Amino acid sequence: MFRLTVRDHIMIAHSFKGEVFGPAQRLHGATFVVDLELQRPDLDADGIVADIGLVGQLLSSVLAPLNYRNLDELDEFRGRNTTTEVLAQAIAERVRARILEGALGADARSALAGLKVTLRESHIAWASYETRLGTG
Amino acid sequence: MFRLTVRDHIMIAHSFKGEVFGPAQRLHGATFVVDLELQRPDLDADGIVADIGLVGQLLSSVLAPLNYRNLDELDEFRGRNTTTEVLAQAIAERVRARILEGALGADARSALAGLKVTLRESHIAWASYETRLGTG
Amino acid sequence: MFRLTVRDHIMIAHSFKGEVFGPAQRLHGATFVVDLELQRPDLDADGIVADIGLVGQLLSSVLAPLNYRNLDELDEFRGRNTTTEVLAQAIAERVRARILEGALGADARSALAGLKVTLRESHIAWASYETRLGTG
Amino acid sequence: MFRLTVRDHIMIAHSFKGEVFGPAQRLHGATFVVDLELQRPDLDADGIVADIGLVGQLLSSVLAPLNYRNLDELDEFRGRNTTTEVLAQAIAERVRARILEGALGADARSALAGLKVTLRESHIAWASYETRLGTG
Amino acid sequence: MFRLTVRDHIMIAHSFKGEVFGPAQRLHGATFVVDLELQRPDLDADGIVADIGLVGQLLSSVLAPLNYRNLDELDEFRGRNTTTEVLAQAIAERVRARILEGALGADARSALAGLKVTLRESHIAWASYETRLGTG
Amino acid sequence: MFRLTVRDHIMIAHSFKGEVFGPAQRLHGATFVVDLELQRPDLDADGIVADIGLVGQLLSSVLAPLNYRNLDELDEFRGRNTTTEVLAQAIAERVRARILEGALGADARSALAGLKVTLRESHIAWASYETRLGTG
Repeated sequence: MFRLTVRDHIMIAHSFKGEVFGPAQRLHGATFVVDLELQRPDLDADGIVADIGLVGQLLSSVLAPLNYRNLDELDEFRGRNTTTEVLAQAIAERVRARILEGALGADARSALAGLKVTLRESHIAWASYETRLGTG
Repeated sequence: MFRLTVRDHIMIAHSFKGEVFGPAQRLHGATFVVDLELQRPDLDADGIVADIGLVGQLLSSVLAPLNYRNLDELDEFRGRNTTTEVLAQAIAERVRARILEGALGADARSALAGLKVTLRESHIAWASYETRLGTG
Repeated sequence: MFRLTVRDHIMIAHSFKGEVFGPAQRLHGATFVVDLELQRPDLDADGIVADIGLVGQLLSSVLAPLNYRNLDELDEFRGRNTTTEVLAQAIAERVRARILEGALGADARSALAGLKVTLRESHIAWASYETRLGTG
Repeated sequence: MFRLTVRDHIMIAHSFKGEVFGPAQRLHGATFVVDLELQRPDLDADGIVADIGLVGQLLSSVLAPLNYRNLDELDEFRGRNTTTEVLAQAIAERVRARILEGALGADARSALAGLKVTLRESHIAWASYETRLGTG
Repeated sequence: MFRLTVRDHIMIAHSFKGEVFGPAQRLHGATFVVDLELQRPDLDADGIVADIGLVGQLLSSVLAPLNYRNLDELDEFRGRNTTTEVLAQAIAERVRARILEGALGADARSALAGLKVTLRESHIAWASYETRLGTG
Repeated sequence: MFRLTVRDHIMIAHSFKGEVFGPAQRLHGATFVVDLELQRPDLDADGIVADIGLVGQLLSSVLAPLNYRNLDELDEFRGRNTTTEVLAQAIAERVRARILEGALGADARSALAGLKVTLRESHIAWASYETRLGTG
């Protein structure tokens, strides 16, 4: 299996509901360093998993609506905690949808097997969500 | 699959038996930067893999009996080399036992699928042990 | 010159005033990985710059009032942008004041020559503030 | 599963053919920080995945013919793009062949389950190739 | 003193002349992760060392003529070895000239005291060049 | 000013005397990732601070007597705590002496202005010692 990863980041504000979150129930924020990993069993004719330029643009475009935002105010997360885990999944699902729409080309759409999104919230904690991408 | 990772570290002394270890047969030591990864197919009602505060405490409590110790003097490792691999497994098994005892709550005990412990011994070498956690 | 550095972090929300900040004028947030460096020409009788345990507690106690906060709501930053630079200075000045009050002991108070606080806001940007500590 | 990883690096020149590569069609170069991960279900009698000294030598010897080279001039890559993905696979396959020849000893040859080679080309992009090693 | 740093990177090919360079006399290449640090005694009215967006653009524009190039073919380096040290200085001098031309604004031009450019060529080697910027 | 840095590491055992050290009074150990920085106002005729191959060998040879050792048993540290700070100075002084003996060549001996040794003991703590090298 081949894996290709590109890194970007977002800076957001949010708060959590639930006693388990302690002081993080207050409005605070985070820098999430975001790693998008694409998985593919075989390379394309150019010898790549995907066009790394397009992958970077895709990740950046998926992150844009979240970046420099208070996530508490976004409709799509209404009633949910935007934990690192939830955000990793939300970003992964958006990337997945965009790939299935052809954002990385027809070849990548059919050939990519899976993807993983990792959000690093500090030097001592990070979370990821991994999902299959193919139709198989 | 979701994965949540927290980082801690220990500083230990030890020696190895066996010619394969060369100069590491002498009493020496290491800082191990320890990453504990928990794996879970679905998030809990709060949108998390586990309470990250409890995970940090669990890791710290498992590492405490090893930290600032000469591992050659510990009964549990008598007759064994405390290699990075052996320590990764020992730490993972202790974490696993503590989770099965409920250290991360009843929900995490039944919902966590696996865990992985990685020990980084330098900027150029590390080892890990991954095991299933569930009853499945 | 000797330098000793310890690392901690905070997760905060804030917004900026001024067109130069573009989208960062909106309420957003950041994880700041904070490095506190202490400088000292000669070591103490124990062979250290300062008691690293005390240094870690000092940094943690200085960061506590900022951690998990919306900095826009704190009196001390009223009317100011809590940029990475401003925060580095604010943290450094508090550390400095605490050291001069004796938080690291009488020896450190007189012997430390300077300190530097670095705040890493992402994998591609960081800022620091360095100041003298001694009376010289 | 146990995993052991060692790190090394190479500095190479190359160019790519294909419009997808944009400015990377020109002769340019890269530092690849190379991580070799070995996977093994159970440890050997010494408590290790493999002799880390031998693993480091093996990786270094596999990298030597590539290091400080213009990859465009090497016969083995004639007509192919030496992308990060292609190089990860080429290095992994050479390591695999050397292990099957006994470079890490008879025990490792039969007991290792798989390996993964990751090439980090910058602080924001990396690629890997993972393959099974055993006969199973 | 305040310091602000932003990170970017280039991927280049080159060769060196001189026996001291051993195998690096051959055409090879490198990824240089480039850190640009700006130094300033006092912050501007917005509470910053400089507009970080402009700093990133400035660094990127200075790196552009080098990126994805064979440095052996560039006129400006004719007859010189493009070592990490030489490149760090060349990049720093170009940044300095652009700042003096006003690329970061009139305020930054007069207020910045110095700058430092660091080029990381691998996980085990890096070099930097630091210079004064002001007229003082 | 130019600065060139190379990285290596050692793995040692030791114990400390003094209540300030708490549990570190017990025999324990550390991995120290060691960065040696050389400072020089102007480059040599080859465009370098020093022959990086020689610098790496010099650092490695200075670290060798410490590596895989119990520092409590070494004569040179008898009666002293081998703290991170003390070791940084000891390594720096040995490097300095070797450079003055000509280990990096006659040119480097006269042209190098200073050096700095940093020992990273974990992901959250490090210490350094910087000294002048020249006769000036």
